[in-house]
Amino acid sequence: MMSKARPIDGSQQSDRCLKELQQVITHHNLTPRLDIIYIGSNSSSKCYIDHKRKKADKIGIQTALHSFPAEATPEEVYSQIAACNADEEVDGIIVQLPVPEKFETQKLINAVKPEKDVDGLHPVNFGHLLSGSEPLFYPPTPKGIMDLLEETEVEFQGAVAAIVGMGRLVGKPLSQMLLAEEATVLCLHEETVELAEMTRQADILVTGAGVAGLIGSKEIKEGAVVIDAGINRLDCKLVGDVNYEEAEKKASWITPVPGGVGPMTVACLLSNTVEACQRKL
Amino acid sequence: MMSKARPIDGSQQSDRCLKELQQVITHHNLTPRLDIIYIGSNSSSKCYIDHKRKKADKIGIQTALHSFPAEATPEEVYSQIAACNADEEVDGIIVQLPVPEKFETQKLINAVKPEKDVDGLHPVNFGHLLSGSEPLFYPPTPKGIMDLLEETEVEFQGAVAAIVGMGRLVGKPLSQMLLAEEATVLCLHEETVELAEMTRQADILVTGAGVAGLIGSKEIKEGAVVIDAGINRLDCKLVGDVNYEEAEKKASWITPVPGGVGPMTVACLLSNTVEACQRKL
Repeated sequence: MMSKARPIDGSQQSDRCLKELQQVITHHNLTPRLDIIYIGSNSSSKCYIDHKRKKADKIGIQTALHSFPAEATPEEVYSQIAACNADEEVDGIIVQLPVPEKFETQKLINAVKPEKDVDGLHPVNFGHLLSGSEPLFYPPTPKGIMDLLEETEVEFQGAVAAIVGMGRLVGKPLSQMLLAEEATVLCLHEETVELAEMTRQADILVTGAGVAGLIGSKEIKEGAVVIDAGINRLDCKLVGDVNYEEAEKKASWITPVPGGVGPMTVACLLSNTVEACQRKL
Repeated sequence: MMSKARPIDGSQQSDRCLKELQQVITHHNLTPRLDIIYIGSNSSSKCYIDHKRKKADKIGIQTALHSFPAEATPEEVYSQIAACNADEEVDGIIVQLPVPEKFETQKLINAVKPEKDVDGLHPVNFGHLLSGSEPLFYPPTPKGIMDLLEETEVEFQGAVAAIVGMGRLVGKPLSQMLLAEEATVLCLHEETVELAEMTRQADILVTGAGVAGLIGSKEIKEGAVVIDAGINRLDCKLVGDVNYEEAEKKASWITPVPGGVGPMTVACLLSNTVEACQRKL
């Protein structure tokens, strides 16, 4: 007897979170500010940035965009990051990824002061994640995913959680957050042989590989919770890694794309920014 | 047709490594020094420390032991760590774990300067591990395990590597080092349900759970490489997590206990100390 998976509504949960943040800002008379470093002209990045700024503006978070052409020197960018680090008005700093090749992602991340690292990617924050201790900030996407998973009331302890895609923004930090909840964690990626055999063991399946249609019926265990953090543009349409029509027949819960993980990422980023602002007080 | 697994001789490899270190020290006229912070009176710890000091002394690394009774105040210990951080003669600092409960392990680790953190446990070093970038020091035990695995010439890319035990000293850092080599990594621990079903998928099986006899015949895939980083005292005898007699009938390679991972840990710790000393020049 198959029944359809219940959708996990990320848009609704994000709206709720943003409304709460707005109340905190108003109540405490906060003036949070998020500065964004943007290098080059990646059109998806431009779109994400606009979206973050619009949501920020709506709830009373000021943003500043520092744009650099791809031809800028690393020194120019570092000096802007240093200025943001020093500026007491700035609560959070993010470097919009990806950056053009000549800029080294890790070095840019290292340059952001850990106390303003609202993307949670600085080695000090990542290090606390791997140690199993509390970082100053959890990276927004895995934090959003954990929030969505909690919504489903899935039991973490002893559950098998498979993560497809071991990138810096989703898979790596998420693996540590799921381990902290005592899940058994399978770290899968493009070199994984027999992917379906691995993912079919998972009570919780999270994918952030960036490959449309990677996860279909045969990759999903009956009754699994499926979280799709993939972002792919297919014929001008935004799709995830999961074949939704197939997946909803096997999963118990599933996130749509769009309207699943994406909105939660923005909410968690802005939540980190407000937290950074409150810590100053 | 079953044949016996080949033993991976950690003692021999460690001796080779220590001899090389001694040559480097002599050749460059180095005066490396390792300072050890020891709190309380754990008898295994005392034994490990004696062993490290003996090996260090033998190859020309000076050591200093800073012992504190369990009744010492955290302030006393922190002030000793600060003194070691500041002392230019000190190249490496380790806090011998475990520490008595009132001392917070993570805070002690955080107090060691990352440049002298030859145990590779400081959040900055751990953070680089999780980022997939190079830490200043790799933690000695997982570094030793990777060295032993390389000795077997097992292919990492696409291999399934299962790690049993997700502690700070072995499992967590090792999971990142195996991922960096593009293995599929299964993170298993005491909450893992159906452990044997998981471990039986592993081409590379590493255990550091601290449970004697945890891994026997039914937990091992035919032909797997088995690394035993468990340390258990059974009737005054040192044993690992693996039932060696059962395991050697199924594995292709296997580390004995003692004489496997243990000696490599010491060699890698001293190698880190010499590296720290060379960086000063």
